[in-house]
Amino acid sequence: MWKIKPPTSGYYAVIFSSKKSNMLDGYKEMDEITMQLAQNQEGFLGYESCNNGTNGIFISYWKDMAAINHWKENMIHIKAKSNATRWYERYLSQICFVEHSHLFEK
Amino acid sequence: MWKIKPPTSGYYAVIFSSKKSNMLDGYKEMDEITMQLAQNQEGFLGYESCNNGTNGIFISYWKDMAAINHWKENMIHIKAKSNATRWYERYLSQICFVEHSHLFEK
Repeated sequence: MWKIKPPTSGYYAVIFSSKKSNMLDGYKEMDEITMQLAQNQEGFLGYESCNNGTNGIFISYWKDMAAINHWKENMIHIKAKSNATRWYERYLSQICFVEHSHLFEK
Repeated sequence: MWKIKPPTSGYYAVIFSSKKSNMLDGYKEMDEITMQLAQNQEGFLGYESCNNGTNGIFISYWKDMAAINHWKENMIHIKAKSNATRWYERYLSQICFVEHSHLFEK
């Protein structure tokens, strides 16, 4: 899910943890469109995702704040976010600077 | 899962994303012990967790780096981590400074 090997420090994570509502009309289609779009944005490094019924954690990784801000201005992304208060019962969105990263792989 | 309402900025997230191995002897017991211990640490703010079969994302939230470093020095935690390369096929551990946080709740 990473386009590159995670850098050891100095990049950004956007953590989006959520509980979905039961009003999900249009959600799946928009999710697919925005995932495709995000992955083609300049500075997109990768993502990690986990869903457990209605609860989910989605983390996208970015080169810098400029890349995050650029993605924030994308019109499709803005349209998707305008539905957020309908699609979700609760969400927490966090913009984080990754100070240290350690990868272990067998 | 948060002990407090998430602050709007200026705290830390430790993102632990992993793929488990099939050598999980002792994992469940240690997981329960360390979860209990972590929640009683000074500066522990809360956690979010999602598991999807063998893949999981666990995020713990902390007041500052001092709290994270103090938890790192806990002997039970050190013992738990000594098993990590057996319990996991892959893991990525990231220490992040949360610059901005936004909570929506219905």
